[in-house]
Amino acid sequence: MSDVHLSIREIFELVEAVLLANGCDAPNAAAVARTVSSAERDGAVSHGMFRVPGYVVALRNGRVRGDAEPDVQQPTRAFVRVDAKHGFAPLALERGIPELARAAHELGIAVMTVIDSFHFAALWPEVEALADEGLAGIACVNYASVMAPHGGSRAIFGTNPLAYAWPRNDKAPVVADMATSAMARGELMLAKRAGRSVPPGNGLGPDGEASTDPAAILSGVQLPFGGHKGSAIALMVELLAASATGDRFSDEVVEDVSDGGPPPGGEILIALSPKLLGGERTQERTEAFLDRLSSIPGVRLPGSQRHRERLDDGPRVLDAALVDKLRGLL
Amino acid sequence: MSDVHLSIREIFELVEAVLLANGCDAPNAAAVARTVSSAERDGAVSHGMFRVPGYVVALRNGRVRGDAEPDVQQPTRAFVRVDAKHGFAPLALERGIPELARAAHELGIAVMTVIDSFHFAALWPEVEALADEGLAGIACVNYASVMAPHGGSRAIFGTNPLAYAWPRNDKAPVVADMATSAMARGELMLAKRAGRSVPPGNGLGPDGEASTDPAAILSGVQLPFGGHKGSAIALMVELLAASATGDRFSDEVVEDVSDGGPPPGGEILIALSPKLLGGERTQERTEAFLDRLSSIPGVRLPGSQRHRERLDDGPRVLDAALVDKLRGLL
Repeated sequence: MSDVHLSIREIFELVEAVLLANGCDAPNAAAVARTVSSAERDGAVSHGMFRVPGYVVALRNGRVRGDAEPDVQQPTRAFVRVDAKHGFAPLALERGIPELARAAHELGIAVMTVIDSFHFAALWPEVEALADEGLAGIACVNYASVMAPHGGSRAIFGTNPLAYAWPRNDKAPVVADMATSAMARGELMLAKRAGRSVPPGNGLGPDGEASTDPAAILSGVQLPFGGHKGSAIALMVELLAASATGDRFSDEVVEDVSDGGPPPGGEILIALSPKLLGGERTQERTEAFLDRLSSIPGVRLPGSQRHRERLDDGPRVLDAALVDKLRGLL
Repeated sequence: MSDVHLSIREIFELVEAVLLANGCDAPNAAAVARTVSSAERDGAVSHGMFRVPGYVVALRNGRVRGDAEPDVQQPTRAFVRVDAKHGFAPLALERGIPELARAAHELGIAVMTVIDSFHFAALWPEVEALADEGLAGIACVNYASVMAPHGGSRAIFGTNPLAYAWPRNDKAPVVADMATSAMARGELMLAKRAGRSVPPGNGLGPDGEASTDPAAILSGVQLPFGGHKGSAIALMVELLAASATGDRFSDEVVEDVSDGGPPPGGEILIALSPKLLGGERTQERTEAFLDRLSSIPGVRLPGSQRHRERLDDGPRVLDAALVDKLRGLL
């Protein structure tokens, strides 16, 4: 497998061109390309260009509307609702976040729901956008059922990721973004492709028995991280992303999502202003705490690895076959 | 060990009388007695009468003010701030929650912070109070440092519990309330007393090495549940409970909390209105989802065990020595 070097700008332009050639209008193509190229920039390649062929299939088969114009409403001063109109999530998020941030700065807390969107598993771009405004952010989405609750052997949850970001002065924010499954679905797929087994506790085979075979788990069910506690967190994510948005629960996603495109569903984003809520001195005290935390040997702050990758503004090394595949979609 | 039978009402009256005899004024004594007797009612005995002698010590040694008059402010329409004035948390919560609920019904989301309080590890009473008003609630507190972050061997977090509740029609709400440590501190103490070892993964001894000896862990450090993901949740709880309230981080609690009384610190409570955010139909759809979830063999909804206990309105069986001890504090 040979390599190609592309700058972040070239990655953005290639992805944007591919999307424009396959039914996206200019605002949607640019928003998705920003998300994809920032994933490549941060070394989060599993959310980068690798996903673009799936997005194109979902555009071509009509599952996602490439020219969706998100509708931003503000039913109350603390609540922003974005109807993504069956489009990709990034443009809906970009349109709503400034309103959400304004409300959180004014009131101390605010919430945004995104409905009828096709969301991208990575949630750090949106919570980090809030941290860039000096706000803390919490985001949840759900997903087609692939995970059993603790104690059960039937899938009902998605891998239900939860992300949060906390702002810092003059430093990259704390940003955690985790599936509430023990293992991300993409990792299972990679293990299957490589013929590797996975550690116990990641899932059950189609027979409902514990398995370490990724193929068996992928056709059976995944399990939550952290036993009954992780399962309770997965349920909280499900309730926030579906009940509090009015969008689908994971087990109500009946459409075929096997085209590699993003799954449909709701997303919730909560923004808080630590400065308004905790007072003028809280940021300084938080910095000191985070410095104490990161000074413990063996401890890394969530998101620090991704932010280190970002400091490199040189070209990224990409699989030539993947780049060729994208160019073939132009 | 012999048993005594007391009704929930008798438990309430005994606890209230003990607190009144030891420096609590009437509102504080009643609020704490409500919290303690509802824990006994629900079978959550580790948060019941067992804790009262410690509360009395903390009152007698002056660590907690029994006559604190909480000050409720509303700096913005979405933000209620309760200064507990160095008193027990229950009265501060009771005073603030009606304002928080009003704001969440009006705006869709609202937040309450409680500062300078001595909080009780159980958070379900406050999130359940929100669920009783048709609201979803999320609560976080931090605590004196007893837990290392994933990868580290130095304590910086408390056991940092997170609780949430989701309202249901004509049914007990979903209520999860969990320490983000692998094991609750009380469970470790019970294992130590019983001379039992605990499963691997719960903590490190004073030498920084993994241990299954509860005594070694209690003088060493506890570990978060669920590895790096649980550790990231513990950090989120810490940031919400300290950075967003302006109160102390866990490692800033320098006072001696070994009297058995509650630890000092901040608490945050977020309330959301699923009906306002998700629309009129969302409750009905949520009920159906929760019914599908609880119909999976082997699965229990969070809080269901506690709510089953509650249905029994008969007397509770208590340790006679504990009841005698409380009567001796009158």
